[in-house]
Amino acid sequence: MGTQKPRDLAEKGSADAAASHPSSRDRLLQEFRFTRALTLELADPLSTEDMVVQTMPDVSPTKWHMAHTTWFFDTFLLKPNVKPYQPFHEAFEYLFNSYYNAVGEQFPRPERGLLSRPTVSEVVDYRTHVDDGMESLIAECATDTWNEIAPLIELGIHHEQQHQELMVTDIKHVLSWNPLKPAAYGVKPKVLRKAASLSFIDFEGGIFEFGHQSPAFAFDCEGPRHEELVRPFQMANRPVTNGEFLEFIEDGGYRTPHLWLSDGWADLQEGNWQCPLYWSQEDGVWTEFTLHGPQKLNPVLPLTHVNYYEAAAFAAWKGARLPYETELELAADTQDVCGNFLTTEHMHPSPVESLESGKLLQIYGDVWEWTQSAYSPYPGFSPAAGAVGEYNGKFMSGQLVLKGGSCATPPGHMRPTYRNFFPPAARWQFSGIRLAKDI
Amino acid sequence: MGTQKPRDLAEKGSADAAASHPSSRDRLLQEFRFTRALTLELADPLSTEDMVVQTMPDVSPTKWHMAHTTWFFDTFLLKPNVKPYQPFHEAFEYLFNSYYNAVGEQFPRPERGLLSRPTVSEVVDYRTHVDDGMESLIAECATDTWNEIAPLIELGIHHEQQHQELMVTDIKHVLSWNPLKPAAYGVKPKVLRKAASLSFIDFEGGIFEFGHQSPAFAFDCEGPRHEELVRPFQMANRPVTNGEFLEFIEDGGYRTPHLWLSDGWADLQEGNWQCPLYWSQEDGVWTEFTLHGPQKLNPVLPLTHVNYYEAAAFAAWKGARLPYETELELAADTQDVCGNFLTTEHMHPSPVESLESGKLLQIYGDVWEWTQSAYSPYPGFSPAAGAVGEYNGKFMSGQLVLKGGSCATPPGHMRPTYRNFFPPAARWQFSGIRLAKDI
Amino acid sequence: MGTQKPRDLAEKGSADAAASHPSSRDRLLQEFRFTRALTLELADPLSTEDMVVQTMPDVSPTKWHMAHTTWFFDTFLLKPNVKPYQPFHEAFEYLFNSYYNAVGEQFPRPERGLLSRPTVSEVVDYRTHVDDGMESLIAECATDTWNEIAPLIELGIHHEQQHQELMVTDIKHVLSWNPLKPAAYGVKPKVLRKAASLSFIDFEGGIFEFGHQSPAFAFDCEGPRHEELVRPFQMANRPVTNGEFLEFIEDGGYRTPHLWLSDGWADLQEGNWQCPLYWSQEDGVWTEFTLHGPQKLNPVLPLTHVNYYEAAAFAAWKGARLPYETELELAADTQDVCGNFLTTEHMHPSPVESLESGKLLQIYGDVWEWTQSAYSPYPGFSPAAGAVGEYNGKFMSGQLVLKGGSCATPPGHMRPTYRNFFPPAARWQFSGIRLAKDI
Amino acid sequence: MGTQKPRDLAEKGSADAAASHPSSRDRLLQEFRFTRALTLELADPLSTEDMVVQTMPDVSPTKWHMAHTTWFFDTFLLKPNVKPYQPFHEAFEYLFNSYYNAVGEQFPRPERGLLSRPTVSEVVDYRTHVDDGMESLIAECATDTWNEIAPLIELGIHHEQQHQELMVTDIKHVLSWNPLKPAAYGVKPKVLRKAASLSFIDFEGGIFEFGHQSPAFAFDCEGPRHEELVRPFQMANRPVTNGEFLEFIEDGGYRTPHLWLSDGWADLQEGNWQCPLYWSQEDGVWTEFTLHGPQKLNPVLPLTHVNYYEAAAFAAWKGARLPYETELELAADTQDVCGNFLTTEHMHPSPVESLESGKLLQIYGDVWEWTQSAYSPYPGFSPAAGAVGEYNGKFMSGQLVLKGGSCATPPGHMRPTYRNFFPPAARWQFSGIRLAKDI
Repeated sequence: MGTQKPRDLAEKGSADAAASHPSSRDRLLQEFRFTRALTLELADPLSTEDMVVQTMPDVSPTKWHMAHTTWFFDTFLLKPNVKPYQPFHEAFEYLFNSYYNAVGEQFPRPERGLLSRPTVSEVVDYRTHVDDGMESLIAECATDTWNEIAPLIELGIHHEQQHQELMVTDIKHVLSWNPLKPAAYGVKPKVLRKAASLSFIDFEGGIFEFGHQSPAFAFDCEGPRHEELVRPFQMANRPVTNGEFLEFIEDGGYRTPHLWLSDGWADLQEGNWQCPLYWSQEDGVWTEFTLHGPQKLNPVLPLTHVNYYEAAAFAAWKGARLPYETELELAADTQDVCGNFLTTEHMHPSPVESLESGKLLQIYGDVWEWTQSAYSPYPGFSPAAGAVGEYNGKFMSGQLVLKGGSCATPPGHMRPTYRNFFPPAARWQFSGIRLAKDI
Repeated sequence: MGTQKPRDLAEKGSADAAASHPSSRDRLLQEFRFTRALTLELADPLSTEDMVVQTMPDVSPTKWHMAHTTWFFDTFLLKPNVKPYQPFHEAFEYLFNSYYNAVGEQFPRPERGLLSRPTVSEVVDYRTHVDDGMESLIAECATDTWNEIAPLIELGIHHEQQHQELMVTDIKHVLSWNPLKPAAYGVKPKVLRKAASLSFIDFEGGIFEFGHQSPAFAFDCEGPRHEELVRPFQMANRPVTNGEFLEFIEDGGYRTPHLWLSDGWADLQEGNWQCPLYWSQEDGVWTEFTLHGPQKLNPVLPLTHVNYYEAAAFAAWKGARLPYETELELAADTQDVCGNFLTTEHMHPSPVESLESGKLLQIYGDVWEWTQSAYSPYPGFSPAAGAVGEYNGKFMSGQLVLKGGSCATPPGHMRPTYRNFFPPAARWQFSGIRLAKDI
Repeated sequence: MGTQKPRDLAEKGSADAAASHPSSRDRLLQEFRFTRALTLELADPLSTEDMVVQTMPDVSPTKWHMAHTTWFFDTFLLKPNVKPYQPFHEAFEYLFNSYYNAVGEQFPRPERGLLSRPTVSEVVDYRTHVDDGMESLIAECATDTWNEIAPLIELGIHHEQQHQELMVTDIKHVLSWNPLKPAAYGVKPKVLRKAASLSFIDFEGGIFEFGHQSPAFAFDCEGPRHEELVRPFQMANRPVTNGEFLEFIEDGGYRTPHLWLSDGWADLQEGNWQCPLYWSQEDGVWTEFTLHGPQKLNPVLPLTHVNYYEAAAFAAWKGARLPYETELELAADTQDVCGNFLTTEHMHPSPVESLESGKLLQIYGDVWEWTQSAYSPYPGFSPAAGAVGEYNGKFMSGQLVLKGGSCATPPGHMRPTYRNFFPPAARWQFSGIRLAKDI
Repeated sequence: MGTQKPRDLAEKGSADAAASHPSSRDRLLQEFRFTRALTLELADPLSTEDMVVQTMPDVSPTKWHMAHTTWFFDTFLLKPNVKPYQPFHEAFEYLFNSYYNAVGEQFPRPERGLLSRPTVSEVVDYRTHVDDGMESLIAECATDTWNEIAPLIELGIHHEQQHQELMVTDIKHVLSWNPLKPAAYGVKPKVLRKAASLSFIDFEGGIFEFGHQSPAFAFDCEGPRHEELVRPFQMANRPVTNGEFLEFIEDGGYRTPHLWLSDGWADLQEGNWQCPLYWSQEDGVWTEFTLHGPQKLNPVLPLTHVNYYEAAAFAAWKGARLPYETELELAADTQDVCGNFLTTEHMHPSPVESLESGKLLQIYGDVWEWTQSAYSPYPGFSPAAGAVGEYNGKFMSGQLVLKGGSCATPPGHMRPTYRNFFPPAARWQFSGIRLAKDI
């Protein structure tokens, strides 16, 4: 079992500064175009009907994601900066506002799937209309305007990237509820290697700095950078696999109350949970529904679609615990930001084989890793003024931090300081488990 | 005020017999083709997205109606009579079964709007597949098979006609929930005449026969023909108008508990009812949402989209009562079966002007008329054996009879003995009010 | 099988007239005292705690019944007729109003069990206060006042009798929910005879008069007296027994959808019904919870605590049907009004043995008998003006008529024209089944 | 503004050790008797009816608290240690188990108020039975048994103290729902002083130890003792007052979404919150319901019955924040454990006047103080084996820590390391606000 050195903070800081030369119009325009195109590419294999349906309040229709990401640029960039401004449709400000009270009333979230209009084709027209406006704005605005709006454009791009992940996980939920079990994306057979064998890596304790502090983009909740005390710990070399979780099931994990948090046990009983979301068993054979259709459960794949309660119960059963967000940030900081991120060719976690024992694997991509850290403000945090201040801060109760990104996270969207967050019962995201231990 | 003679029963019987020479293959084939084509014609102006959405458990998506009416022929005609039979898709038996326990499990009704697949286009293919099968079956089956299946084909045609009305009222509900308030069908301006002035027509009492008894098609619940005692009564010459109902509203009708049945008052308070479904008021101006989009409320149009509680409260306020089903059947029996039925050009009730005082108007078409008669079995009624026995009998609790058809009822679907039925709180059908009085 | 003659209507009318010499102050005073005392006698064996609890919205606490029946006299007799009037407590008008909108707002029905105050002892004081006032009013009021208030006092007495039955059935529900299964009343062992063997009695058809028309007391919904056409029919000689219903269960009655009305089947599945309310099975032995505690199920006892859906399913399984209210009124009219009514010594249906085949038994008392007749207004019915007009008329939707009274109906409360009414899913009353058949 | 020194840890440790000479039988027996008697004393002024009612799932009837605290000694002390053991009633193990899965099934929590039996008097008998058994056990058991059971007896005593607080807050909720607004306890008029003026006290940052580590009693969740990094901060000298919160209300605090956490704003809208629980306004006059009945709102009293969302919104409005649990533990550690704790004479928070500016006031008693720290396990925490391990650990999700005790916390129950916990929406406890700030 190897020991990782804590990151060299000075080195890190300068690397960040180099990586991000902020406000080049051309760079942002290319990122804007790339991101806008990827949304359409992700929707391309779907039927029109697929893009309308909402199978639970947490899920939004594909069509809505396509429109709401457009609404962001429309509302926060074009309306304030293009004079006079002719909106594509007066009602869209209300229809596609997700949760920004400062912008105005919102169409009720659980009813997004009750809207047949605007049609998919009209939403695509809306996208084109706003894209054209953005192209002009980026090309033509004065320098001081540019300096003001560039961070908002960058926020809009990262916002759309977040929705690309949600769009993909939402459509997975929609299709999984259909008894016909259709595949969203063509099955790309993949030669599946063995998973690396499980080991734990030692990390030293100490006082370290955490959180974002560089000119490169990050969400407001990732800062301010601040010190935290970390105790020595061990981190698993890779995420938990399907095979390992199957042992938990076969050992009666879902029927053993003392392994579970009280809220989780109550939800388990009410929802009659017996396995992760998207798993099913018939005649003793386990199947996992994927974006490429139903697949025989493969024990070497990283486990995914478990919620915090399942993750914590598994850890308790395994004699381990879930990591803190500080621990995962320290671990992530030792690695390059690369991994199994979003691509339309293979939208599922994959195993990584490694000959090198004690090497930290898959810290990025594949599955989001639940931490036991509440999603709460960093010391000194205060939300931005105005509507964009509603982006993160108001969600800082009742949720837990997840780290590292998944197979549905767009490439370029991840960094060590990234804090994703979901309530403990959520399991329709690509969320998995990496174990930790006290030393 | 004129007096109508009770119908000459003998004459009626023989007319019925003449009208229905039952089992000509050619006649049924023409009716089959006509009905199947009308379903597609009704769906034609809708967007694909419109056909997916379900805005409440009572509503079914257009796509589902298109598939379920096909399922009826598939399940009850093709499967038993074509050997060997290759179904279009194995899962459709389950997916598109509405409520036939004898056929098997049913996909949950409130979740029909969560199905994106099969797509609309696949459903159209399913229709073609079954239509082809039906054409062959009708053309080629032996005479004794024909004699056995002809009544089922006729039932299937009338079943599809019922769903055509539901399809139209369901899509109205779907579009009405959309803040964009789209029109399903092009607005066909209509020169609106005055409504006839309200009067009451006397009917004599006595013992009369009611219910169906002729070789022509009727649903099982319309028989057996039997005698009932009827007291002398008065029947309004026409349905209540929007203008008359507006007076009720302006007189505080929705705030006066003593006018309401207890269940209705409870629903009113919980749902905060203040006007009929599809009415809305802004700045003192009333608007009615129609299948041709929102329209300024026209006081001469027949009132529609009220439930039984609203109908009963209005009648109480007016010093009248709702008719019994016997009374409406007697009244209907004096008239030819013609009126404002379903056409894709104008899907809304219309007024009828009449110079002739005391003439019974609009007994057919425009709006279904609520009766105060519980939908219960006629003396001696027993449901047919097998799955089709579930068509009507099992719904004989908690519902009330409505008579006469509406502007969404396909032509050829109506007759005096027809018994439509809905629970007292339902108001998304074209249901209206015709008043009656004791003499 | 014998044949009953239709009643001699003239004779009946005169008998009624003789029986009711209306307004003697002394007679009413005695009835008032008797009824008021019986309420306390019924509550006497209960603990204070028993009188507080409400186990479902339909159930009211004993304490509430004791107060509400007092409220009736307080509100409708004392307040209008005693000047100046000092109410016992200002808030009681609101707290103990059941559903009289004309009196004012009502404390929410489902929350009656959340009120610990007034205490039982304070409610008893309230009863004494109002009883004293009533005694004075009856003794001292002028003759014209007396003529005006005597019918209201009579209504108040019958109202309290109705609540005595509800109080008893409600406390049964409360105790049955308690895992300790306490007995409300001492077990009085009863030598249980055989039940009479089941036979059917023929009745002739014709036009008969129905409903109340005599100076004796009846609720407004029992009139006006009017004619109805009745078809020849057969009526079972006695109610269905536990043993007969057990056969239905053992034949899979609760698992056979085609026997059930659609609403009933939906409720059955949601509520997982497998037997009548208060039945339970352990190790193959059936137990029935009674007001005298749990008892081994006795097959000769009349079946009770089934709802309309269960009654109709049983009748369908048995090849019979439920009677119309006209049929039961005709049958009841042939019998004296006596039977197993409310007594504190034995609160459960009992079998009646009869050597005489074809004799109509237990038409009164033991169990209420479900009819298939909707509870709707008789021709010409209109509710009384003012608050007491809310007594019956506003409940005329969604309910069915039951006839004959039960073992919880106070003696003196029953008559052939009596119309009890409950929604089809209600089964906490002593409701049972008497079968009928067409001839 | 003064500055508090961080606690001298060594000194603290030795003081703890001195205070707790653990296992004297006599000391524990006196504490047992005192605590058992206090429960009955608290219930004494209530009516029997008050002790039965449950006004929401979180609330338990007084009777249930009296029985469940007894069940604890019955189950964890008597049953395992008295042989042979004759339980008072076989069913009580199930009926009065709160949430111990290791003991067995539990009677459903939301239905505790549906149990009329056992009666209050039977519960008192149960208490006597168990008290007798405990007296004998304490007096007679062998030394090694004593060493084993003494910590469990101590746990049982502290468990009953916790339920004393719940019993008092639950009965407050029960009485507040009653339109008669009865007082639980006699009104003891109190000369109310001015509140101290608000100021903030500086605390230095550093690494400090937190959590329990002494032979004296503490709950398992208070340890292990461990180090945490604390940043310099300011702590308000006293809790927020009613008058200060009234300014928030009058400034539109309940109508300003940007002040609220997203979950809180959703709850506010659904519950139509406009003020703290137990406040009401009529004709511009604010009233606060207390255990001594309704009182005109006194602006100098400490604010109480706000939930975490209200506390956080108020802090945001005030330009401050809620403290971390570390900060409150540091502050508490500078004070003697005394304050306005539970007494039957005055059950409401009181103001404290202080001439000394910058003095930390009311850190104990009066109101629980919300922290922004999630209730999560301390590093190295693991629950005890067996059923008592369910006491705390399984609740470590979705809740927040509150510190300091309240006017309903029994004296002797508090200490600096005490961690109370409730979900963010809970407000029926005596929960208030102490502000903090970054330096």
